[in-house]
Amino acid sequence: MAGSTKRADAQRNIDAILAAAAECLSRNPAASTSEIAKAAGVGRVTLYGHFPSRAELLDAVFVRAIATGEESLGQVDLTGDPRAALIRLIETSWQLVDGFRTLLVAAQEVLPPARVRELHADPMARVERLLERGRAEGAFRTDLPTTWLVSIMHNVMHGAANEIQAGRITSAEAAPYITATLLAAYTPPGERVLV
Amino acid sequence: MAGSTKRADAQRNIDAILAAAAECLSRNPAASTSEIAKAAGVGRVTLYGHFPSRAELLDAVFVRAIATGEESLGQVDLTGDPRAALIRLIETSWQLVDGFRTLLVAAQEVLPPARVRELHADPMARVERLLERGRAEGAFRTDLPTTWLVSIMHNVMHGAANEIQAGRITSAEAAPYITATLLAAYTPPGERVLV
Repeated sequence: MAGSTKRADAQRNIDAILAAAAECLSRNPAASTSEIAKAAGVGRVTLYGHFPSRAELLDAVFVRAIATGEESLGQVDLTGDPRAALIRLIETSWQLVDGFRTLLVAAQEVLPPARVRELHADPMARVERLLERGRAEGAFRTDLPTTWLVSIMHNVMHGAANEIQAGRITSAEAAPYITATLLAAYTPPGERVLV
Repeated sequence: MAGSTKRADAQRNIDAILAAAAECLSRNPAASTSEIAKAAGVGRVTLYGHFPSRAELLDAVFVRAIATGEESLGQVDLTGDPRAALIRLIETSWQLVDGFRTLLVAAQEVLPPARVRELHADPMARVERLLERGRAEGAFRTDLPTTWLVSIMHNVMHGAANEIQAGRITSAEAAPYITATLLAAYTPPGERVLV
């Protein structure tokens, strides 16, 4: 009984820390663990007990953000014309990346690119399935491997988040830029790029 | 006299540390500062005196790598057909990124994306000039800003380095994948992607 109360307390603390971290980091990607502990209403020792480093905390916040995103992505209609389906998937994906942009910037500073990509395994698998169908139907190029095309989407989207953070493009501009870039990049050689 | 000898000693140590760091990190992106100090034949205290953190050391190694790269890039013929010139520029750029790939992977783990991009200011300015000329001559799309097109090249190339590191593509495959992707991405809407 005492054990399960302890576990419930621990889970409540973890939830509070992750919620506070998501909030603090979305305001300021450089938010410190002390600030996050304070916002969560827990002591620093408690925070470090659950997340021994800032990188581990950011990783856990990221895992939650991806899980939240997966709920929205699961509702995108991926049937019909593959190009139109891709445009819908890019739009929702970008809304998520843009919404979590400051968190992504914070994560990129402490997590290696390989870990950031690994955290995106589920959304990337969805893109891969749509690209495979579009390739089979002649909508997307087949001269480059699907995994490469998926990595392009990942890199272009995350690159856009960095461009916004650097003040070189606005959040509103990014969506059409990403769509125009990826549709062109995925066009089969010899075919015309969509206007 | 004593002062200038001291300065010459310091410069010799810095050169030895940077050369050793470039060598150690190209073998192992996780090489420690102790390993690097040992390879440079200097004490750890001397290394930390010049580079207080591993990030500062990696930054300095990167600055040198870019300067070396600039010498090769300056010799690429960027005249004539803009698409052919871009293919030549991509080839040489990729040889450099691929040659410094392990160093890049190490740098990406400790330097934020904004700093990595800042370090590439000179090579990116060269790409920008070529893209501007190609846009004026109708070879590249003008519906997206040039700075965005430059960022795409940066992200696709660095993404390729990460794909190789993850074992998903080989170094030999990367060059044609990058060229095919960027030429398509830069094609004006309504025009055909080069075969």
